[in-house]
Amino acid sequence: MLSKQPLNKTIGTFIPPVRTLMGPGPSDVSPTVLNALARPTLGHLDPLFIDLMDETKALLQYAFQTENKLTMPISAPGSAGMEACIVNLVEPGDKVIVCQNGVFGGRMKENVERCGGIAVMVMAKWGEPNSLAAIENALLENKDAKFVGFVHAETSTGVRNDAQAICKLAKSHGCMTIVDAVTSLGGIELKVDEWQIDAIYSGSQKCLSCVPGLSPVSFSDEAVAKIQNRQSKVQSWFLDMNLIVGYWGQGNSGGKRAYHHTAPVNSLYALHESLRLLHEEGLENAIARHAEKHQKLKNGLAELGLTLLVEENSRLPQLNTVVIPEGVDDASVRGQLLNDYNLEIGAGLGELAGKVWRIGLMGYGASDKNVDFCLSALKQVLK
Amino acid sequence: MLSKQPLNKTIGTFIPPVRTLMGPGPSDVSPTVLNALARPTLGHLDPLFIDLMDETKALLQYAFQTENKLTMPISAPGSAGMEACIVNLVEPGDKVIVCQNGVFGGRMKENVERCGGIAVMVMAKWGEPNSLAAIENALLENKDAKFVGFVHAETSTGVRNDAQAICKLAKSHGCMTIVDAVTSLGGIELKVDEWQIDAIYSGSQKCLSCVPGLSPVSFSDEAVAKIQNRQSKVQSWFLDMNLIVGYWGQGNSGGKRAYHHTAPVNSLYALHESLRLLHEEGLENAIARHAEKHQKLKNGLAELGLTLLVEENSRLPQLNTVVIPEGVDDASVRGQLLNDYNLEIGAGLGELAGKVWRIGLMGYGASDKNVDFCLSALKQVLK
Repeated sequence: MLSKQPLNKTIGTFIPPVRTLMGPGPSDVSPTVLNALARPTLGHLDPLFIDLMDETKALLQYAFQTENKLTMPISAPGSAGMEACIVNLVEPGDKVIVCQNGVFGGRMKENVERCGGIAVMVMAKWGEPNSLAAIENALLENKDAKFVGFVHAETSTGVRNDAQAICKLAKSHGCMTIVDAVTSLGGIELKVDEWQIDAIYSGSQKCLSCVPGLSPVSFSDEAVAKIQNRQSKVQSWFLDMNLIVGYWGQGNSGGKRAYHHTAPVNSLYALHESLRLLHEEGLENAIARHAEKHQKLKNGLAELGLTLLVEENSRLPQLNTVVIPEGVDDASVRGQLLNDYNLEIGAGLGELAGKVWRIGLMGYGASDKNVDFCLSALKQVLK
Repeated sequence: MLSKQPLNKTIGTFIPPVRTLMGPGPSDVSPTVLNALARPTLGHLDPLFIDLMDETKALLQYAFQTENKLTMPISAPGSAGMEACIVNLVEPGDKVIVCQNGVFGGRMKENVERCGGIAVMVMAKWGEPNSLAAIENALLENKDAKFVGFVHAETSTGVRNDAQAICKLAKSHGCMTIVDAVTSLGGIELKVDEWQIDAIYSGSQKCLSCVPGLSPVSFSDEAVAKIQNRQSKVQSWFLDMNLIVGYWGQGNSGGKRAYHHTAPVNSLYALHESLRLLHEEGLENAIARHAEKHQKLKNGLAELGLTLLVEENSRLPQLNTVVIPEGVDDASVRGQLLNDYNLEIGAGLGELAGKVWRIGLMGYGASDKNVDFCLSALKQVLK
């Protein structure tokens, strides 16, 4: 006998409408990627699946512009990628200079503190990049700092931090660098090796235009050495890179694979396909496309009398924070766009809630079609 | 200029063969579920997606046979579900009696220790259930123990532990119960409320026949109170139920949802569909089907002269550990089944490696067709 009876109502299969996703992510997923997602499931130790894993690592190395052997997707969303980088590297008592200019720097602080690290905060105004001078000050005042962590592309504000300059500064003070590239990977220039990034994480659902749920990460040899020589075990079993590497393997091919956790097989088909499409287009072309569509959107917004929050030199092309004009009702506009146009744009987050909209032009969604559609819908709703 | 040139070779889209998955999971996924998986992605805060989340919670409550408000899938595989239960409940210094009779009890120990808990191990032979007398002894010797953790269905050995009796014993000693139901949910009887289970985790890719990557969890009110009244923060930000509940909501419907992490939207379509199919069939019918197909497989194996490792009264119908006969080459048989028949069966794990095969009959794969196919293929390969 069942102690709990079946639900009274019949639950039907879920048929979502076709939305145009121009928020902060998930972004529009290419039909090709959705097609790959639904292919027959293989076992997570099937030799053919291991080939796919090896190709995925090579494609990620290309996307990240790195030769790092320890480059792979974490089997969970970007927030878990952040946690993977921090819990593996930061040991209790380790000091981390954390740059914050939006939501995600604050999340980095949380992660550092939850694994016993000491977070030294360098704050900047929401909508502005972190200042190099302030970071240098923090480095001078904290000579025992071991890491500098920052967000390359702040999804909550649309700001680009100067990753190359921050990393150069950090390395000149003997610090390793931990970089949030959730929204930057595939959308703007990002060179892990050349810029000396030691640990980096991203998300599948932004400029890679894959479905949400995976977080590509990469670790430099210096970072790997730190992880291998920890005094204490990594506090997360699921995210322990020393164990995960037994399944994903060292380098790009061959070697026996040991079971760690059951990989999200189908989501990895989709990630492979989205990286393959990026490789086929070419990273430089994809980056140029993001810049071009951003330009077009910006011009169109200006014609509607709308302005961007972020100054031009630190503006992200893939995430446009639009100042909500005086007297315009935030929720009502987003609701109309969603219900009448099947168009999702993002709300403001944290202290920018109610003050901005976030319009994403990411990956497959960074297209003339999406820009035209969004501008035309906004024009009608705002008039 | 790119610092790393594109890969030399062209990488084609990945077209997997259609395997029959009769290992320890992932199990065969219904085409209906794969179809749901590939539907257009919605934003993770889209009102229609939130409706899907609410339905998913109600369907999970039915599958778990619970009224627990805090019932939802974790956005990562079963191993993360295990970690979610343990890091949320176990505080530094808390003593946990951990029953181990295979791989996954050992993983529970790892997780307890990595969050500062003290694991008191109750061991049983691989292939046998944990003894109630040994657990009672441990409870008597450790009056300060706060939890008893055990694996309901040991995927590494094919053994069912008597969850109802272990929970009754634990509760009579004032302990909360943490149960691994990765392989049991949907395949054998499991009654969270009636059996007084306080925290439980499962996996999407076993008897639910969904794609891998999600871990349904459920917490009793007593467990929720412990989590809310912790002295220290949960060490994992990503798995902190106090934060996740802000996104998934309390109860089954309504209420504002706050962003925590980006949910794996498409995988959740698939989970919803697989739970819907379970609900449509009826839990009792699904459980009866698993038992029936197991009986059929067992009879067929006996005709081939093959025996099962586990004694009948603690044998799992959904995970059959078959003793590899003397003189038969383990890897060669599995290789032939995979390459000549596109049929995956599982290898032995841990101390059973090379000694057993693991034949799964899970969810959609617990069918006459699969049993017949597997027996016929084994017969040909073994002759």
